[in-house]
Amino acid sequence: MFEEKLKELEPVFYPGSIAVVGASANSRKAGTAWVWTLMSAGFPGPIYPVGFSGGRIGDLEVYPSLKHVPGDIDYVIVAIPRQSVLEFLDDCVTRQVKAVQFFTAGFSEMDAHRGRDVEEKMVEKARQGNMRIVGPNCIGVYCPERRIPFIMGTLGDSGSVGFVSQSGGIAGKLATVGLARHINFSKGVSFGNGIDLDASDFLQYLAADPKTRVIGAYLEGTRDGARLFRTMKEVARVKPLVVWKGGRTEAGAQAAASHTGSLASSAAIWSAALGQAGAIEVYNLEELADTLLLFQQLGQWQGVRAAIIGGLADGGGGMSVSAGDACMDSGLEVPPLSIDTRKELGALLGEVGSILHNPVDVSQAQFRGLETLFRSIELVANDTAIDVVLIQEDVDIVLPIYSQKGLEDINDFFIGLRNRQSKPIVVVLPPGSAEPERLQAEQRLLKASIPVFCSMDRAARAVSNLNRYSHRQRFT
Amino acid sequence: MFEEKLKELEPVFYPGSIAVVGASANSRKAGTAWVWTLMSAGFPGPIYPVGFSGGRIGDLEVYPSLKHVPGDIDYVIVAIPRQSVLEFLDDCVTRQVKAVQFFTAGFSEMDAHRGRDVEEKMVEKARQGNMRIVGPNCIGVYCPERRIPFIMGTLGDSGSVGFVSQSGGIAGKLATVGLARHINFSKGVSFGNGIDLDASDFLQYLAADPKTRVIGAYLEGTRDGARLFRTMKEVARVKPLVVWKGGRTEAGAQAAASHTGSLASSAAIWSAALGQAGAIEVYNLEELADTLLLFQQLGQWQGVRAAIIGGLADGGGGMSVSAGDACMDSGLEVPPLSIDTRKELGALLGEVGSILHNPVDVSQAQFRGLETLFRSIELVANDTAIDVVLIQEDVDIVLPIYSQKGLEDINDFFIGLRNRQSKPIVVVLPPGSAEPERLQAEQRLLKASIPVFCSMDRAARAVSNLNRYSHRQRFT
Repeated sequence: MFEEKLKELEPVFYPGSIAVVGASANSRKAGTAWVWTLMSAGFPGPIYPVGFSGGRIGDLEVYPSLKHVPGDIDYVIVAIPRQSVLEFLDDCVTRQVKAVQFFTAGFSEMDAHRGRDVEEKMVEKARQGNMRIVGPNCIGVYCPERRIPFIMGTLGDSGSVGFVSQSGGIAGKLATVGLARHINFSKGVSFGNGIDLDASDFLQYLAADPKTRVIGAYLEGTRDGARLFRTMKEVARVKPLVVWKGGRTEAGAQAAASHTGSLASSAAIWSAALGQAGAIEVYNLEELADTLLLFQQLGQWQGVRAAIIGGLADGGGGMSVSAGDACMDSGLEVPPLSIDTRKELGALLGEVGSILHNPVDVSQAQFRGLETLFRSIELVANDTAIDVVLIQEDVDIVLPIYSQKGLEDINDFFIGLRNRQSKPIVVVLPPGSAEPERLQAEQRLLKASIPVFCSMDRAARAVSNLNRYSHRQRFT
Repeated sequence: MFEEKLKELEPVFYPGSIAVVGASANSRKAGTAWVWTLMSAGFPGPIYPVGFSGGRIGDLEVYPSLKHVPGDIDYVIVAIPRQSVLEFLDDCVTRQVKAVQFFTAGFSEMDAHRGRDVEEKMVEKARQGNMRIVGPNCIGVYCPERRIPFIMGTLGDSGSVGFVSQSGGIAGKLATVGLARHINFSKGVSFGNGIDLDASDFLQYLAADPKTRVIGAYLEGTRDGARLFRTMKEVARVKPLVVWKGGRTEAGAQAAASHTGSLASSAAIWSAALGQAGAIEVYNLEELADTLLLFQQLGQWQGVRAAIIGGLADGGGGMSVSAGDACMDSGLEVPPLSIDTRKELGALLGEVGSILHNPVDVSQAQFRGLETLFRSIELVANDTAIDVVLIQEDVDIVLPIYSQKGLEDINDFFIGLRNRQSKPIVVVLPPGSAEPERLQAEQRLLKASIPVFCSMDRAARAVSNLNRYSHRQRFT
């Protein structure tokens, strides 16, 4: 499905060469930043800086105009004043450019009438020249495989998560959070006002893209709702589609109008449409990132029967109680463990101070050593009544009891368990007063493909979101 | 109100001397840990370790039994097997101990019938000896002023936030999170099964305590619901009372029964009762900590008209949209700025790429320097249409544009603004890939009494929670 989009958008995600227009030796210019960032990222094709002032950026010559560029130009990144864009597009047509990305802003998002008028003329010129436009008012393409970062410059490993975002800020933040949490992207795009290529085009591309296995989206509004929802429905049939709709409220919608020129529809209409399309609606950046992380690790896994393990050291009781609440609030089941498992746990841990139902409080293991802790967790993970294991590991209490070495041993055990088990192992590392050690542990687990969350609420929500997709697939 | 409780519980929170029973040179014992922790914290009175094995813990002699202790004993912390507690209480009566805290567990939370039976006998003995019991199955008292930490040992500065918790784990975690986020406690208590002193007693004490200005509570259940709700209603009239009810769901409630022997009532009944009592219900540890932090900084401030400032550097648009949603979802208002403010902002920032309504996107200031940024923020803060200013500061985008020095200058400006302004300034520092710099910035702002949150959703929720209290106070 949508295979034609792969060919159509190939110059956008895999350009052979990139010209950056609005660059100069003056480092304050956005164009200059883009040149540096493409160079640092190691974009493998020619990079052509273009700017009136000439000179050099690093080893690269700055050409006074597009027509002075010596080679073929597949893709152009534009950061020039908005007054010049129409004239500039003529140059692009002359040079047979395949696609143009406009960082330049100040169109329909600023002036609904005159801005829209200019935008229509831009699209007209692009059609005549057989060119595609990304933006305006956007930071455009992010493609680790092709070494194309956003303007901010950070670029993670190539992975399986694709995303589209109407907002450059959200796109950039998602890329950065992805870098920190080992969410690896196949490609992403911020498309701003989306006057030519818009959410529907990019969603279709990602649906067809063999590198992309799950798709995230931040959307504020659309100029063609019928097409968008038809597209989302088709896309969600082939890959999980996680959508965060910004501008659900009056304050948000007003900001959205000024931001990407979007006329927001009511939140209820969007929610209903997303539900009908089979997309998973999420409500903030954290939930979007959490859900994409989990899809990345688990694919289209399903299962709602959660075992919750708390109290790796002291104080598991209250955490078990609240973790049980968090899971059930999110729609997960927290079934009793099998009688055999409970018996064996009782033998391992004793009864006093332990909760041997589910949630399971294994804090008594601290008096019996790490082997007891590991055997207890493995017992729970092996229980056939359980689909997924959620483990709360509070570094603040693990450290004083087991020391740094013990913390590392525990995480080694989780990694081994994850490799032995077909069941997902999800770890919750709540923040506290040992942040360096906690962040280190988080990195270690994430690198070993264990999903990590900072609260049980967020972990449970993400697991539940996965099930919302899987569930739908089974019955439609 | 409840002034009699101050006298009654003085030996609990301000004991002259503490005996720790169940201590030995063997460092694996909980009692030993408690002795070390009291010594390290600098408890100013005599500490008497008691344990059969004798020997020394640091400079302190371990006495074979309570009757060998040379001085008066106000308070006893008990970590001995549960089989010995009744006999042990006789020794306490003989020594005219004023209060006893039982870490020892394995009573009604393990065996509803036999455990309850032992608990009743314990209370009977305490009554005869004119003693009070904290616990059993608890980590007891936390009082920075008197240098009494929990067993885990960390102890923050003395402050204005009091808390009661049925769970030792939650109490300990709240203390640790408080340490990390500069939530400073007057005193706290984990009371476990609460067989003698329970939530009502401690809430009454904190209501009367002149050092306490706001009260947090984690509760799982109660043996005397009528008294608890009467107490909460009286307490909430004099001080803000923030309550997290654990065990709202079936899984949580089952864990609660095994944890503190609590029979949980339905969540709906609790929510209704908390609402009627004028308490602010919260739903997890993060929201409890967030709300207490904000009450600590702002006291009984009120105001729902929020200005949201985003885009301190690039990419403020999408953040403004989603921040607007977050605030309105939480019940805050995001009113338009006055015309004068908008005009002046337009002159400062220009129109292109800026959102000059509310939420305010000030990202254009990056092309005009920090002074422009500061003047823009000050303009918004001075607007009389606004009660509170919520600023999203994304370190991931501030750092590359303004460098570490710029980040520090921005935070200095916030601190100055906070000192000039009567309006609350709330800062949101979302996590990303520059965690060390972000954590450093967070510490700096928190130390200067600026409340910091890691997401706009959490900030907005906390501001809204403050208003729920204040609002109620005005109309009842």
